Amino acid sequence: MIKVGIVGASGYTGEELARLILSHPEVELTVATSRQFAGRKISEVFPNLRGLADIVLEDAGPEEIIGRADLVFTAVPHQTAMDIVPKFLAAGCKVVDLSADFRINDAGVYEKWYQAHSAPEYLAQAVYGLPELYRDKIKKTSLVANPGCYPTSIILGAAPLIKAGLIDAATIIADSKSGTSGAGRAAQVGSLFCEVADGFRAYKVGEHRHTPEIEQELSILADREVTISFTPHLLPISRGILSTVYAKLRDGVDSAKVASTYEEFYRHEKFVRLCPVGTYPATQYVRGSNFCDIGFKVDPRTSRVVILSAIDNLVKGAAGQALQNMNLICGFAEDLGLNAVPLFP
Amino acid sequence: MIKVGIVGASGYTGEELARLILSHPEVELTVATSRQFAGRKISEVFPNLRGLADIVLEDAGPEEIIGRADLVFTAVPHQTAMDIVPKFLAAGCKVVDLSADFRINDAGVYEKWYQAHSAPEYLAQAVYGLPELYRDKIKKTSLVANPGCYPTSIILGAAPLIKAGLIDAATIIADSKSGTSGAGRAAQVGSLFCEVADGFRAYKVGEHRHTPEIEQELSILADREVTISFTPHLLPISRGILSTVYAKLRDGVDSAKVASTYEEFYRHEKFVRLCPVGTYPATQYVRGSNFCDIGFKVDPRTSRVVILSAIDNLVKGAAGQALQNMNLICGFAEDLGLNAVPLFP
Amino acid sequence: MIKVGIVGASGYTGEELARLILSHPEVELTVATSRQFAGRKISEVFPNLRGLADIVLEDAGPEEIIGRADLVFTAVPHQTAMDIVPKFLAAGCKVVDLSADFRINDAGVYEKWYQAHSAPEYLAQAVYGLPELYRDKIKKTSLVANPGCYPTSIILGAAPLIKAGLIDAATIIADSKSGTSGAGRAAQVGSLFCEVADGFRAYKVGEHRHTPEIEQELSILADREVTISFTPHLLPISRGILSTVYAKLRDGVDSAKVASTYEEFYRHEKFVRLCPVGTYPATQYVRGSNFCDIGFKVDPRTSRVVILSAIDNLVKGAAGQALQNMNLICGFAEDLGLNAVPLFP
Amino acid sequence: MIKVGIVGASGYTGEELARLILSHPEVELTVATSRQFAGRKISEVFPNLRGLADIVLEDAGPEEIIGRADLVFTAVPHQTAMDIVPKFLAAGCKVVDLSADFRINDAGVYEKWYQAHSAPEYLAQAVYGLPELYRDKIKKTSLVANPGCYPTSIILGAAPLIKAGLIDAATIIADSKSGTSGAGRAAQVGSLFCEVADGFRAYKVGEHRHTPEIEQELSILADREVTISFTPHLLPISRGILSTVYAKLRDGVDSAKVASTYEEFYRHEKFVRLCPVGTYPATQYVRGSNFCDIGFKVDPRTSRVVILSAIDNLVKGAAGQALQNMNLICGFAEDLGLNAVPLFP
Repeated sequence: MIKVGIVGASGYTGEELARLILSHPEVELTVATSRQFAGRKISEVFPNLRGLADIVLEDAGPEEIIGRADLVFTAVPHQTAMDIVPKFLAAGCKVVDLSADFRINDAGVYEKWYQAHSAPEYLAQAVYGLPELYRDKIKKTSLVANPGCYPTSIILGAAPLIKAGLIDAATIIADSKSGTSGAGRAAQVGSLFCEVADGFRAYKVGEHRHTPEIEQELSILADREVTISFTPHLLPISRGILSTVYAKLRDGVDSAKVASTYEEFYRHEKFVRLCPVGTYPATQYVRGSNFCDIGFKVDPRTSRVVILSAIDNLVKGAAGQALQNMNLICGFAEDLGLNAVPLFP
Repeated sequence: MIKVGIVGASGYTGEELARLILSHPEVELTVATSRQFAGRKISEVFPNLRGLADIVLEDAGPEEIIGRADLVFTAVPHQTAMDIVPKFLAAGCKVVDLSADFRINDAGVYEKWYQAHSAPEYLAQAVYGLPELYRDKIKKTSLVANPGCYPTSIILGAAPLIKAGLIDAATIIADSKSGTSGAGRAAQVGSLFCEVADGFRAYKVGEHRHTPEIEQELSILADREVTISFTPHLLPISRGILSTVYAKLRDGVDSAKVASTYEEFYRHEKFVRLCPVGTYPATQYVRGSNFCDIGFKVDPRTSRVVILSAIDNLVKGAAGQALQNMNLICGFAEDLGLNAVPLFP
Repeated sequence: MIKVGIVGASGYTGEELARLILSHPEVELTVATSRQFAGRKISEVFPNLRGLADIVLEDAGPEEIIGRADLVFTAVPHQTAMDIVPKFLAAGCKVVDLSADFRINDAGVYEKWYQAHSAPEYLAQAVYGLPELYRDKIKKTSLVANPGCYPTSIILGAAPLIKAGLIDAATIIADSKSGTSGAGRAAQVGSLFCEVADGFRAYKVGEHRHTPEIEQELSILADREVTISFTPHLLPISRGILSTVYAKLRDGVDSAKVASTYEEFYRHEKFVRLCPVGTYPATQYVRGSNFCDIGFKVDPRTSRVVILSAIDNLVKGAAGQALQNMNLICGFAEDLGLNAVPLFP
Repeated sequence: MIKVGIVGASGYTGEELARLILSHPEVELTVATSRQFAGRKISEVFPNLRGLADIVLEDAGPEEIIGRADLVFTAVPHQTAMDIVPKFLAAGCKVVDLSADFRINDAGVYEKWYQAHSAPEYLAQAVYGLPELYRDKIKKTSLVANPGCYPTSIILGAAPLIKAGLIDAATIIADSKSGTSGAGRAAQVGSLFCEVADGFRAYKVGEHRHTPEIEQELSILADREVTISFTPHLLPISRGILSTVYAKLRDGVDSAKVASTYEEFYRHEKFVRLCPVGTYPATQYVRGSNFCDIGFKVDPRTSRVVILSAIDNLVKGAAGQALQNMNLICGFAEDLGLNAVPLFP
């Protein structure tokens, strides 16, 4: 039984961490922080946890947490994370950071898309927490940079084909659609029910901060610098991301080759499910689970492949993947506590 | 490890049974039937089960199932159930019937609201499967009549106050609202997305077939004949029922008395959660779980109590309660396999 | 062509007023205020109005508005309205007030449910703006207190039966369900998409401030003091209220009598549509229109009538009714500019 | 006042035609057909029309319609349309056909994507009913092939840039998302509320029958053969399409050039609204209206332009555009009866 803490437990990601930890047999939640709701039980803030989680939220900094948790999940905004993560690490506390602060290897790139980095010396030791790509490194690190939700869906979808050289990495376009929980629990007009329901829109077209993260990982896979078009859209659903990724196929690559490449790449992956050829994933089929469902279509008319990749943004796109990383760090079975069957309908 | 079968596995209730069985450590699904989808894997019909459940659906009658399952869940329409349940029982197979066929003790009442009963001799041995009221009887029976979704929410909400004589049973009004999964997976215009979304309506006002079932149980609790007004409504959500129940309070009954009565009644119940006074349940806080959340308001202006009761209609209102009954019949811990934390948001 | 102003144009009610005014042939919007968005075009705040309404929002008080509008709609919170309405009236400007400040005839009752009233001397001259009940008075007044959304649906549903003495007014229970636009456009967690979507809940049970307004009008109709149970619920839809109203029928009242009473009462009403017996209204059938659809069920088992009443809370429940009142005050045809056909699906 | 008929009035498109005709001052609906609902009033099938449209649906063929309507809207499936349209034309009746049967100029292409064409001799006289491109031809024709919903959004979005030669037509990718009304009112499992709500998926990837229609029109605009990638997705909303279109920009084309090209192209178009640079359209801002809202983003990192185009699929994508075409054919003002302000929220 290890002790874990959640820094930032009053957002949807924090709540999902708490929810998943309740079903994990080897983990105990010993501290959970929230500035806004300090002094209140987490089940008052999230009544779905009523009777299940009685921990009282605290307005606590690293100093007050260190010693009470073996591992902390930092579910705070970028910039806040880079200030507190080094303190946890210095005290021997492992960290799975759910912010963007340690995802970008290059401090210059980070600065260009976010702002100056206050702890660039930690970038080298941080491991990008996509277990399907970096399992061995994650097992040995003390600092996991948990991937963004959009990047998780896009990278898992495109990785096998890029790695195998089946597509022209210069032609990648990722058209992604996310549920509204991705916007967090902050009270803002743009996230109100009446603004989102029965509607659909794109936002931050070509400017979303997940772009450099996606490009970094695709570049590593392609072994060359990759620039992509990435357009996020807001779906009137709570949970789920579907990414539709387009790329030109190399000459002679057919559907069978693509299928076998995916099968080979994900043969041993518990959380990636491949859709039979001719069928496609849907966000409602991964709801509440840590699965990433992937399908594809080879279109001979255009010599393009269209990749469809679906995750629950709060699970595989955030808290579930964070627990998967924790399992690796702690030496637990990778899927321990993560076997919830997708909730449909 | 017991072997179970699902008769009628291609509806939402059947799928939910399959989903819950996957998380139950002592149960194995050995047979699942569907006329429409015979020959196809259940995961083709419900892709959320992809990679998790590979059982092939069969167009099988009782004869072909007997011997392959220790217990069967009959998730078929009323009238169909009464034809097949006796065959299972005769063969020594336990049955949890999710239809209405064995819920009404009085064959005359059944005939009035449904049609003539072909197996009235089984009504006496069938136990109404609301564990919070009939736990001991359920443990000893071979035939559980799993309660309807609306009745579960209304009876659990009203039982403590009726039993304690705090309300005038002649004044009960139940205004219930259900998610659309309650209408099943049949292809009908009234259940189409465009007919239901962004809308709300009542249906079968004063005529819904769950009425006699509710009245039967409330009458037993009141020890007198109870007639209620019951109005079902259709919510633009997939899962969840909220029932708002009104009744006149007996003289001198105050909020504290009501609260202590609930606490006393449900003190040992794992699946009933009482909301702190001043707060109310919501369907989104029980989603995917076997909980029934109950809150109330004593209104001195009108001398009425308003009871709010929320369940997930597919879990506590159907498949979850069926597994809870199975657990009781089989001598498992009552909550085995039923500890999913509600999924929010 | 008359000139009108909207005080408080950045909420959903303000926007709906602006939207409806665009389709009204005899009205010109000359001033629209918003503190938060002053200096911006209304079409920047509500892009659905792009290219149609170019008015720039102002942070303007009554002094700056007087002289520029013949009639103002005050779509501001209660308490704010009572401060500004007298100034408009004093300057000869007609007012349709959409707040609660002038709806309650008795300042003592108002104070009990809201707070002290700063302009009680105007209560006597204010006319409750439900044209179906007060058409003649509205035509002659300078101050209309536009009804609340819940009261509109409940009063229109119950009025004919109360007025005709067919029901026992002491037994009325109103169970209402409202779309989320009723909560306004304020950025608050409880109105976020993820908190409301795929969910349902009651709120302010027995304590909602529309209660005294409903009771006042039902009391006038019954010619005796009426106290009701009123429970509002929050629907995961943007627009629409459905009220389900229960009452005991007087001896001997049957379905035919109820039907003919409704028909008689609403024979000449353009905005009330009666559902054929056996059918019920739905919010999606009045969406975007000024209709109130009413249906009922006489239940001989319980001697109760169940009344179903549906409106679009932003139209007949707010802005549409405000324009209907304006039409009466200004001598236009009552339905001028209000003939939009409900938008379905 | 002209007389019009709707062939196929029980689907969502048929209903929308009836709804819009009600607000059109120069048109009278004299006949409406439905096999399934023959003998019933249209307002029984679509209760939103209660009290507004009393026409009785008939199971009538062309022979029974001819002479009773000056113009018919054929809102029937493809293949059915090609059988009846020639009969109307032969009788001197004008036709706006909302099926796909007369959209494809080349019978061979039609046969490849649909099936053999039984009336290819009419393809040459049919005019593709996109008024923004073919206004003059439409005015003179007797047969308008009303465009598909996806094509309308994509073609209007891309036309100015293709026509001006600003993009490489060989690089066009159209990622489109449609509300569920696009799937029609047929009772099928895939359109059920529980299958669609809180979910998102792609379908018919690279195989949707609107592909050749889009390619035909883009080819004409580009004056060369254009092949595109087109991926439709199903949104959990009732109305609305948003298309996200990607293309490589010609060297030296910047945001200002793109903006001025759009402004020039759509300068006189009443139903196309351009979003200010930096803002994007949303389906909820065109709901219920005949507008097509267009925005774009020039991304210098990738030398691509991303075009966002939003319509209400039932209005500009079907019935509204059909009335727009009717207005042109009949010599009415092009926007007569089509000035509804978008309904938001």
